[in-house]
This record gives sequence, C-alpha cells and structure tokens, in this order.
Amino acid sequence: MTALLHNETIDVLLNRRSIRAFRDEPLSEETVATIETAAQHAASSQYLNDWSVIRVTDQERKDALAEIGGQPYIATAPALYVFVLDEYRNMVIAREQGVDVDGDAFTLKNSYRFSQAQNDAVLALHAMETAAESLGLGCVILGSILNDIPRLIELFELPKYTYPVLGIAIGKPAQEPALKPRMGRGLQFFDDVYNSDPAFVTRNIAVFNDEVHTYHDLRDPNTPVPTYDVQTANKATDTSVLERGFDHAAAQGFDLDH
Amino acid sequence: MTALLHNETIDVLLNRRSIRAFRDEPLSEETVATIETAAQHAASSQYLNDWSVIRVTDQERKDALAEIGGQPYIATAPALYVFVLDEYRNMVIAREQGVDVDGDAFTLKNSYRFSQAQNDAVLALHAMETAAESLGLGCVILGSILNDIPRLIELFELPKYTYPVLGIAIGKPAQEPALKPRMGRGLQFFDDVYNSDPAFVTRNIAVFNDEVHTYHDLRDPNTPVPTYDVQTANKATDTSVLERGFDHAAAQGFDLDH
Repeated sequence: MTALLHNETIDVLLNRRSIRAFRDEPLSEETVATIETAAQHAASSQYLNDWSVIRVTDQERKDALAEIGGQPYIATAPALYVFVLDEYRNMVIAREQGVDVDGDAFTLKNSYRFSQAQNDAVLALHAMETAAESLGLGCVILGSILNDIPRLIELFELPKYTYPVLGIAIGKPAQEPALKPRMGRGLQFFDDVYNSDPAFVTRNIAVFNDEVHTYHDLRDPNTPVPTYDVQTANKATDTSVLERGFDHAAAQGFDLDH
Repeated sequence: MTALLHNETIDVLLNRRSIRAFRDEPLSEETVATIETAAQHAASSQYLNDWSVIRVTDQERKDALAEIGGQPYIATAPALYVFVLDEYRNMVIAREQGVDVDGDAFTLKNSYRFSQAQNDAVLALHAMETAAESLGLGCVILGSILNDIPRLIELFELPKYTYPVLGIAIGKPAQEPALKPRMGRGLQFFDDVYNSDPAFVTRNIAVFNDEVHTYHDLRDPNTPVPTYDVQTANKATDTSVLERGFDHAAAQGFDLDH
C-alpha cells in the first residue's frame, strides 16, 4: 500500500469524524469570524455566490430543529448553522438590472442552477467544517433537519428561490468516537470507465463488511449492529426519505423539470 | 472587524483560488493516494458512501471533456477526476440481500437520496481539493463538463443509479491569479431569520460591485469586465444551462418527483 503524505491539513481531513456531544462553551467571536470567512472562500459556480446561511442562535429555533431532526443534541450545539441554496439575492440583483424575473427567460430557477447552488452551499459548508476541525472543534452535518422542509422555510422565513440544503452543529467535542472505516479505494475510484460488474461489488464489499462489524463490536460489544450490507439493504427501503426531497421546490419558485 | 485566527489549514482555505493553467508534471503516487484517501474520509449521509469517481487518464477522454466543457486547459490537467453520485453500488448490495430493487419500495432512486448522494460527492470533492491545495497543488472545479450529460454517461459507462456531479482538474499551478473578492459576510450570514428586504440586498451589493470592478481592473485594465450586478443579470437569463440539469436523471433510473 502506498504511504500517505502528511501535513496539518491532511491530518485534519483524515481524522474527521462526526461529533454528536459538545461541551457547553460558546465559540469565540474570532472563531466564528474565521470559520464563516473560510466558508465564503470556497469556490462558487460561475461566481454567483448562490448560497446563504442561517445562524441558529435562538433557543426556541434550536429546539424546533432538534425536534424536526429527532436528535436532542442539536438543541445543545454551541453553534448551529443551516445552509440554504440561494438564488433570491441574485434574483433581486437581476431584477434591479431590468431582467424579467417572472418570465421563462429567467433561468436561475431551473434545475442546473438549483443543483449548482446546492453544490456551492456544500462546498462552503465543508470549508467551514474543515476550518472548525483544524481549530480543535467537532462537527456533525445534519441531513435530518430536512424531515420537515415546510417548517424550516417558515421557521427561518426563507423566501422564494431559496431551499434548505444541510445543517451543521459545531462545538468543543465532549466525546472521542473511533474513526469509522472507509471502503477500499478501488471500490470508489475507477480508471476511465465505471466497473458495473455486480460480482466486483459483492466480492469487494465483503472485506468492508467485516471492518464495519469490527468497528461496531469494539465500540459497543453489547449492542449488535447489522453488517454493512444489511444496513444498506434496510436504508434502501426506507420510505421516510420520501418526505425530504425536492417536493417543496416548486412552491419556492424553482422549476426542476427544466 | 474581528481578527481571524490562523493555522496551516485555515490559510489553505482562505487562499483558495481556481487554477486554470498547470505545469506538465504528473502527481506522485503518494500524492494521488493521499488526496483520494482524504476524499474518502469526508462525511457520508447515513453512511451510504454513495459516490464514486472516474479518474480520467486516457488522453482521448480528456480531450472529449475539454471539448464538452469548452475549456482547452481541461485536456492538459495532470490529474482529472469526475465525481458521480452513486446508488448503483448500494443497489447491488441491497439486491444481493433480497431487496426488490425494481419495486416502489426501493427508495435509493428518489430525490432525497439523489440529493444527499450529490452532497456527499461534493463533500468528498472538497476534501480532495483542500488536501491537494495543502500540498501546493492548484485546482479548478468543473461544472462545464455537464454541458453534455448523455455523452459523459456514455464516455465513462456510468450505469443506472449514477449521475455526474462535478469534475476537478488538479496539478502544479502555472499561474498565480489574485484572490477573487467575496461579498460582505452580512449578505450571506443571517441571524435566525433570512432578511429578504430587497433594499438590504441592493444597498449592500454596491460595495461588492466596486470591489469586483477593482479586481478585474487590476488584473487586466485593457479588458473591461461588467460589474457584478450586470454579470449576474446576464447569467440570470443564460439559457444554455437548460441542457445541464436533471433531464437525464429519469433515464438513469432516478425518480426525482418523489
């Protein structure tokens, strides 16, 4: 196996794990300014800067997010952010320049820009996460807050042409979870063409299955966790995800059919 | 203004700029292993590891991507990756476990998983980008390769339940572009509720407009570039983006209406 290179940044990236318990200490003003500015310096598709963030500071809103996500630790996170994809700001700018934003020619509402704005929000979120982790903080990315998109829209007064993407909770870690295993690199990286031979998957996933089993067993031998393939099969038929998708995008002004 | 904190990682994130000219030097095997492994350690929604990457090494395929993206430098990038969202691998695993992957109960094909798999691909791509930059390499993220999604699918033999997300070109920088300005933090970060007052946008974007103008003027005083608001208005009516959206997702097996 090829030896990996190391520096401070690479060690931060290789040691990343989700932290779901935080010490009750606020982030300093300098820390907040630093991680937010790092987020702003991520790349942005066509320089449209098409994302925004809600800093959730109000305890009632934190409690609401914890309830929506079904995870009580969300309410106790020292810093809590909700990233949204945002073409509202660009719509205002374009309208001011005389663009007919209600007509068909207005393309910031279409699926490509929706998708790229989502990507830009995620790039910014990951820059924030990495900056925070480099400062010794712990983070967890929150997809579960999308359980109730209409309520998020109401809670944060999200206007037309915006849509929630992901949340992130940040604070000083109050736990030290082990690093979760990753599958063999050959299963995720392909040279020039995708290898879609099912036997390739089943043969190679077996090793990963064992590693995931050992991870859970070492972590808590008394609580049996299904193997990776059984976990995946369960998630493949999870109907709760049907509430979390693009269904509310049309109400927010987007046209994802084009 | 609050002073920012600094360390190696934060400096990498704050100094990020897109590099579009590379020296003709391949990446070492150690570098490749390091940036690819860093990508794998990014967070993954519900631990589904639902992304894959095509390493584009074949010159004909590099040329094809440069043609699709309309950017000749793509063909000369020492390392070129195409990230895809990937529920194919999970489908194979679930099918092996007896899940009826052709029925309605199979939810890996729905919009929430499509969207989260896309996010996971972007998290991994940004981890790779940051790792590469920390090693002194330059990167540019490529949305333009989505100009011809059917051709990408054919070129890389992408199976059902996969979809291209973004490309990234990586190499030793052969240019030193200035840092592109970012808008005021108050325009992107909101406390608890989104500020959708149009006057708030127009008032605050004016400062950014001037900064963007100065940036382009210093870079190349002989080529006038429109101000940020005019640029944004032009992009808001760009109809070429209509080719780049979700249109081919159904053909790849996804059901984005649910």
